[in-house]
Amino acid sequence: MGTRSAWSAANGEARPAGARGGAVNGTLGAAMADAMAAGGPRRCRRLEGEAARAVLANADTLLFDCDGVLWRGEAAVSGAAETLGKLAAAGKRLCYVTNNSGRTRAAYVEKLRRLGFPPAEPRHIFSSAFCAARYLRQALPPGAAAYVLGSPALAAELEAVGIPHLGTGPAALPGPAPADWVKAPLDPAVRAVLVGFDEHFSYAKLCQALRYLLRGGPDCLLVGTNRDHRLPLEGGAGIPGTGCLVKAVETAAQREAFIVGKPNRFMFDCVAGEFPVDPARTVMVGDRLDTDILMGNDCGLTTLLTLTGVTALDEVRGHQDSGCPARQGLVPHYYVDSIADLLPVLGE
Amino acid sequence: MGTRSAWSAANGEARPAGARGGAVNGTLGAAMADAMAAGGPRRCRRLEGEAARAVLANADTLLFDCDGVLWRGEAAVSGAAETLGKLAAAGKRLCYVTNNSGRTRAAYVEKLRRLGFPPAEPRHIFSSAFCAARYLRQALPPGAAAYVLGSPALAAELEAVGIPHLGTGPAALPGPAPADWVKAPLDPAVRAVLVGFDEHFSYAKLCQALRYLLRGGPDCLLVGTNRDHRLPLEGGAGIPGTGCLVKAVETAAQREAFIVGKPNRFMFDCVAGEFPVDPARTVMVGDRLDTDILMGNDCGLTTLLTLTGVTALDEVRGHQDSGCPARQGLVPHYYVDSIADLLPVLGE
Repeated sequence: MGTRSAWSAANGEARPAGARGGAVNGTLGAAMADAMAAGGPRRCRRLEGEAARAVLANADTLLFDCDGVLWRGEAAVSGAAETLGKLAAAGKRLCYVTNNSGRTRAAYVEKLRRLGFPPAEPRHIFSSAFCAARYLRQALPPGAAAYVLGSPALAAELEAVGIPHLGTGPAALPGPAPADWVKAPLDPAVRAVLVGFDEHFSYAKLCQALRYLLRGGPDCLLVGTNRDHRLPLEGGAGIPGTGCLVKAVETAAQREAFIVGKPNRFMFDCVAGEFPVDPARTVMVGDRLDTDILMGNDCGLTTLLTLTGVTALDEVRGHQDSGCPARQGLVPHYYVDSIADLLPVLGE
Repeated sequence: MGTRSAWSAANGEARPAGARGGAVNGTLGAAMADAMAAGGPRRCRRLEGEAARAVLANADTLLFDCDGVLWRGEAAVSGAAETLGKLAAAGKRLCYVTNNSGRTRAAYVEKLRRLGFPPAEPRHIFSSAFCAARYLRQALPPGAAAYVLGSPALAAELEAVGIPHLGTGPAALPGPAPADWVKAPLDPAVRAVLVGFDEHFSYAKLCQALRYLLRGGPDCLLVGTNRDHRLPLEGGAGIPGTGCLVKAVETAAQREAFIVGKPNRFMFDCVAGEFPVDPARTVMVGDRLDTDILMGNDCGLTTLLTLTGVTALDEVRGHQDSGCPARQGLVPHYYVDSIADLLPVLGE
């Protein structure tokens, strides 16, 4: 059964609670069903009952975003571990696809274990840190080094693929005057500037990053792990995300960075390079429309939004009803309140 | 004599050396002259001879950008001080309009004196630091404070108008984990985040700026001194400009900052609030098209580009020949190699 069949099954389901339902069973409803059958605007449906059974039966592989989907901070989403346990027991391949560049693959394996998720191997983890290292390994000539604005985890992933690096940790300006700042030594091996989440981000690092980019010109790569502008914390607070740091470097250099993370399809390509995944039999599960869902839709995956993270259903409706083709890419095929909602259709 | 007359006089001048001159005296040249007379596309002419005499005779006030126009770093542009001396002796009002937020007005007065320029008073200096303080004094309720990413000079200009501030100097994150970062105390009086050039810019400051903006919502102003993306240094090197820091904060907050500096006309409005200037009798002299020249053109001033700074004549031609109306705003009325080129027409 292909994705189209699962989709058609879903169309037979009741519309989600709260959706504008007046015309569903009338002329407009039929027109919509026709439009969808003809590949018209996607309308997001709650994934439950027969539709859920059909989507899961069709899926070989499920890709999960982590924060906001499986856990929030250090607390697992209630029922999430059990849901993934049943998916694993049913023979599904489970992969983890996260824009977070602050943890190694090994740390993700350990966190999944600690929170009671089914056992994972490092090769099932596709973080933006790992994918950035993989990108640079492909793109850089042998021996070339990276100047890194990022965490020790990002540095560790570079080391794991044999890319020399410098720049992590705090940095100070090398003197009191701008003329001093542009005289600090530059490593001759640096051929890339890599920007990830960096709590030690500073003007001194921005200055050094610009100097490498000006020295190398187009021969010095500019790579960002992701563009998330804010990282949500428990209780509604938020801290600046990697996207802010990427923007600062891009503005200085007047160049656009290559972005490794979602919504760029590079991250899915990393999965597809490791495992034989068929997009038509793959589900992307995420809590963010402009990263998780957009990448999934762009790659031809079935997309499932969970409301345990940063997105409320009103945002989906806004895109859906916008009449704007670009915003259609942000509309998931399905949504659930929590991935634990899938438990009933996963049987005993 | 109005600006139009000065302009017509210039049209009588020879075309600048190196301009594409093939059709000048033919049909296309006549068409262009007609287009200009009818307010068509502006074509930048070298300012010399009769045109220079006419433009200067018509001018009551000249606004000078500083770095790249009057000096480069600590070295005055050769002949610039003498030129300004003659303009002052001829009774012209000379004002200084700079996006640099790293010096106080008093420091500019002192630098002008040190490099041999005619005596200036603080009220002739319109720096983005001073103008930002002036903006906040108008926009903030009494007693409200500003969280400042900026230099001691920016802080001093705020103090001069009685705005309490905090944030300048180095800052550290208040603990090892993100949960700690969002617990650092916030000053209840802060009602604005002001971003200027800040060599101590850091993730810790970005985080705190975002927290003030999220706490205050639209009641917390976001103000940037300028958007210059890079500051040129002697020898062709460059360091990241304030625009990079503004972009980082804007990205975190998902809000656009109010920008005080050029090309925003606010800076000209500050001049016009201090002196009775007539735009038709005012010349803006600068080395940067997207700040100096754009502001001057937007405000209806006569614009004069000097090639002693960051702009080469090819850039002007690119805009001029683009056929793009938006880029027309970047085309100055006139150019000189150096403002010292005006000396011959200033007589003894």
